[in-house]
Amino acid sequence: MTNPIDYDRYDRIRPIRWTGEALELLDQRALPFTVAFETCRSSDEVAAAIHALTVRGAPAIGIAAAWGVVLAAREVEAADGATAAAALAPAMQRLNAARPTAVNLAWALARMRRVLDAAGSDWREVLEREARAIETEDLAANRAMGRAGAALIEAGSGVLTHCNTGSLATAGFGTALGVIRAGVADGRIVRVFAGETRPWNQGARLTVWELQQDGIDATLIADAAASHLMKTGQVQWVIVGADRICANGDTANKIGTYQLAIAARHHGVKFMVVAPSSTVDMQTASGDLIEIEERDSAELLSHKGARTVAEGVRAWNPVFDVTPHELIDAIVTEQGVVERPDVAKMRAIFGG
Amino acid sequence: MTNPIDYDRYDRIRPIRWTGEALELLDQRALPFTVAFETCRSSDEVAAAIHALTVRGAPAIGIAAAWGVVLAAREVEAADGATAAAALAPAMQRLNAARPTAVNLAWALARMRRVLDAAGSDWREVLEREARAIETEDLAANRAMGRAGAALIEAGSGVLTHCNTGSLATAGFGTALGVIRAGVADGRIVRVFAGETRPWNQGARLTVWELQQDGIDATLIADAAASHLMKTGQVQWVIVGADRICANGDTANKIGTYQLAIAARHHGVKFMVVAPSSTVDMQTASGDLIEIEERDSAELLSHKGARTVAEGVRAWNPVFDVTPHELIDAIVTEQGVVERPDVAKMRAIFGG
Repeated sequence: MTNPIDYDRYDRIRPIRWTGEALELLDQRALPFTVAFETCRSSDEVAAAIHALTVRGAPAIGIAAAWGVVLAAREVEAADGATAAAALAPAMQRLNAARPTAVNLAWALARMRRVLDAAGSDWREVLEREARAIETEDLAANRAMGRAGAALIEAGSGVLTHCNTGSLATAGFGTALGVIRAGVADGRIVRVFAGETRPWNQGARLTVWELQQDGIDATLIADAAASHLMKTGQVQWVIVGADRICANGDTANKIGTYQLAIAARHHGVKFMVVAPSSTVDMQTASGDLIEIEERDSAELLSHKGARTVAEGVRAWNPVFDVTPHELIDAIVTEQGVVERPDVAKMRAIFGG
Repeated sequence: MTNPIDYDRYDRIRPIRWTGEALELLDQRALPFTVAFETCRSSDEVAAAIHALTVRGAPAIGIAAAWGVVLAAREVEAADGATAAAALAPAMQRLNAARPTAVNLAWALARMRRVLDAAGSDWREVLEREARAIETEDLAANRAMGRAGAALIEAGSGVLTHCNTGSLATAGFGTALGVIRAGVADGRIVRVFAGETRPWNQGARLTVWELQQDGIDATLIADAAASHLMKTGQVQWVIVGADRICANGDTANKIGTYQLAIAARHHGVKFMVVAPSSTVDMQTASGDLIEIEERDSAELLSHKGARTVAEGVRAWNPVFDVTPHELIDAIVTEQGVVERPDVAKMRAIFGG
């Protein structure tokens, strides 16, 4: 990168706010027309908000869950961390069960548990400090990834992204959207396209809104128009986030990501995955071992509670898919960039 | 096919009704919750209905336009066909301009013009007879294609279709959906999946509804879930219609078709295009010569008139794409089946 990034311009949104007493979550279900925060005063309220998609995006879910543990601690009396850990286990289990696919959720909870086990009588402060660290480290990681990812992109490029991987999905700046922010700030990226991302329309409702807040012009397309777009030559990179990256580089991400990777390879368009190392799961050898969350078919059958499809019709609603590492040109993390990932290259950076 | 098809069961819907005085069009914008016909009493009302998507689907548009010419004839005094043709030219031009991509529209109007030029004082009856012939021939073609296409499918197969290519898009039975009807009737097809087909949701609103009328169980998916579906092994064929088939087999069809063809090839899933020979345009050498209709971005930015995307956001809304013939395993027409199409095989059946 030739110029420093003006973060005052390119990093304005904070979806997660810890007040010291409660956790305020920007309600992503109400965006883009209503900007409102939902206040969670207990860990179960946080778990419910994660399940209901009030907060979404793998890193943001992890951060919210960490603050959820801090809230759970308010309801526990314990002389030391180990005792508190036992008392907090049920609440942490409920947080962990709120969404099945994102590894960051389990990762953040494991991190909270680890410091808790080692803590003495100051275990409450330790938990709060760790939640804060998870949040600030995520923001720093995103800024580092933004620079590293943008450095891979040729000047004058167009990019296509999927779902929302921005400030809304993280502590700030975003993963894939952080790379896009950095690339736009640097002048390398001159065209940004975003897919609608059915059925929850994260691209249509969140991504183009979020980019608009930073003055970045983005063009919305139907998910099914991606290949036609690539054929027109307007896109040189597809840049997406990840919910889980396996030991061989196989990547679980929002449904439709896999299809974009296939189309990108077909057109000679490059494919970049951007995620913090907390998303890397070296314990899972390959993508076929990942549980794919399937959500209520109502998400495909109605709009704002009103049925849009004939009564009696069934839908199949898997919300993630797995992109095999062979279709990925670069995995960008704050610990390093893995080009054309395989298990050896992944181990060189992430161990395991 | 081993058994005759029970058309009383598998061919129930008629979207276009000529009353002798007016043209009644099943309003496809109101489906699936309201089944209502819109009455057109002039050719300009028919042109407006075609443009507004009250009637849609390449063959259905051609049939509606033919009846539109019959309506235009009511307003013309002429002693013979050639004189009438001159007087009807402006109305026919307006019908032709109602949608740009579907070749059937121009084909049907050219056919009406041809019989008109040759007609004497009975030119009104000639026009009405020709419109009726276009309609009945389309139904017969669909039934023939249904049998021919289904014969290519192995017993126990699953299929995925896109957009609506059924009775609603034709005189009846459908093109791609006709093959699916025939395959289900015959027991060859045991699983049917339909993509939503954003932004107009023809799959979600029309296809699954239409199949439901025939008692055919179909599962709706997000367009972006198609590749993940293919990976699960539940689909052996993608079966789609066409708006225009070029001399080399390149096929223009609803946006997203091209992406399905790429994904199908990637997974070893076969790809079938089903369309009447009126869709074949031997005058257009290849797909890069086809004008791709782009519609109002509002179709991506709002739902039932209510904005769903932040104000100020732009969208790009191409509604067709071109699938190159290399990705097509079979083109099924009523004149014959072209496997692995190329220009030589196309010429052998369609001349030119």
